Amino acid sequence: MTSNFADRLEEAVSRAGNPCLVGLDPHVDLLPDEFAAARSGATRSERAAAAADFLCEVIDLVAGRIPAVKPQSALFEVHGAEGAMAWERVVRAARDANLLVIGDVKRGDIDSTARAYARAFLEGDPKDPSSRCDAVTVNPLLGTDSVKPFLETCSRTGAGVYVLVRTSNPGGALFQEHGSPPLYERIADAVVEWGRGLIGHGGLSSVGAVVGATHPAELASLRARMPSVPFLIPGYGAQGAGAADVAGGFLPGGRGALVNSSRAVLFAWREPRFARMHWKDATRAALDEMIAALTAVTAAARA
Amino acid sequence: MTSNFADRLEEAVSRAGNPCLVGLDPHVDLLPDEFAAARSGATRSERAAAAADFLCEVIDLVAGRIPAVKPQSALFEVHGAEGAMAWERVVRAARDANLLVIGDVKRGDIDSTARAYARAFLEGDPKDPSSRCDAVTVNPLLGTDSVKPFLETCSRTGAGVYVLVRTSNPGGALFQEHGSPPLYERIADAVVEWGRGLIGHGGLSSVGAVVGATHPAELASLRARMPSVPFLIPGYGAQGAGAADVAGGFLPGGRGALVNSSRAVLFAWREPRFARMHWKDATRAALDEMIAALTAVTAAARA
Repeated sequence: MTSNFADRLEEAVSRAGNPCLVGLDPHVDLLPDEFAAARSGATRSERAAAAADFLCEVIDLVAGRIPAVKPQSALFEVHGAEGAMAWERVVRAARDANLLVIGDVKRGDIDSTARAYARAFLEGDPKDPSSRCDAVTVNPLLGTDSVKPFLETCSRTGAGVYVLVRTSNPGGALFQEHGSPPLYERIADAVVEWGRGLIGHGGLSSVGAVVGATHPAELASLRARMPSVPFLIPGYGAQGAGAADVAGGFLPGGRGALVNSSRAVLFAWREPRFARMHWKDATRAALDEMIAALTAVTAAARA
Repeated sequence: MTSNFADRLEEAVSRAGNPCLVGLDPHVDLLPDEFAAARSGATRSERAAAAADFLCEVIDLVAGRIPAVKPQSALFEVHGAEGAMAWERVVRAARDANLLVIGDVKRGDIDSTARAYARAFLEGDPKDPSSRCDAVTVNPLLGTDSVKPFLETCSRTGAGVYVLVRTSNPGGALFQEHGSPPLYERIADAVVEWGRGLIGHGGLSSVGAVVGATHPAELASLRARMPSVPFLIPGYGAQGAGAADVAGGFLPGGRGALVNSSRAVLFAWREPRFARMHWKDATRAALDEMIAALTAVTAAARA
């Protein structure tokens, strides 16, 4: 992992032929019946192992079909040390399957602390670098000095970061739209700036932005404001956004964005229209739909 | 742990007779020589164990003298699963020593994810509730729905949260001062609102605010703006603020704030004036100074 993250990202997207990102959010209560033993009553260690077993099967299903996965840290941390072990097992499995791994950790802290977070997630175990993520999500509230340690690590190791700019949840507006211009535009400008030293051969930077799909107009205006910045677009699927809502997030040519779906793919078997299928078939079917819908979006952007 | 966090906090401060908070930031590279084996070359597991061994000795030194400690999550996470084990060992040791534990995790995410973080840190292992923190720090950038799961947990379990309002680092101004009124005032007003349902017998809420000591004028104006909100004031000691700088953070009577010092206490032996002492004596001496300085501040506020 020495080349620029943005270049590896573009390569992975072009290899897969689509910009789909599957979020690995192992809510234990939602696991398929064959993992039922892991639900209530089981120990934290059994629940963590079940979450990792499930996700490793999901990784087998999506490998070779999409460019990247996004494990969600909270759902591992809830299992304590066993959860941290499960996290590394899932990161390794995804990397072994040639998937890029974007750790959704949303960390942000003062410099010496941020340095420890960058090391924890972007370098992993020094004796086993396969435990590291290709990129992580970062919360920018503490400003430039809280992001710099991540940038330094990216520059040294070829990793990437995605900075929260405009989130997809209903409450996101309260602070992110504060002021005039709104805070999220100010964060967007900082993200462009932070990425200047990390531009790859393809012209994209390794400092990306998380921009929700639930605000299509903002998504398009942020896309225009940040032409060198790869987007990570959450909110597709279970959070309500469709393919049309994310179209504005792509650069001309259909480049420059990953679109994430977590629950709608992982737990597709819970949806009425997939109810008679085995969970793996439901997940495959949901993934097929997502790939088809987003391939159409990027094809339209290329036309 | 069923009574209101704010009440347990006031009780702990009045029992200790001072508002000192010691941050447990186990930078392995800074550990005293007797932990030198744990530095470069050792395995992640050895480093994690050394960090926990060191902090357990620090806990012995401070127990009975101060109301609370604040372990910093990043410095544990950097050791992977072994770090998570070390975290729980330190949390347990502090609780056993009758210290309140404020987990400095600065998490913030959409609702279902925030719920997992709240469970991870405020409830801990269901089979061993002594692994839980009394309170955690929370990043509010994602808005009300990202904080609510923490508030629900607080209401059910008697835990507390400290929301980042104005941080002590140099870069904090970039986004926190954005807009007019500045963002941090808007966050402050939300914190007051979020705490309304969690007011204790003493009139303070279990929803606190992190307000840096490196901005004394803002600290005093925020104190006036948030009379029911307990403050956690970082920036004292190694980050440059002194006792005079934090005075404005207290309510009349010297109540309502904890003042944190991490490196200046933990690694006091590295300072020239303590250089000939054993690290434990240096830490004791640094803590004595901090307690004396802050007791003077709260006594002045009572006069």
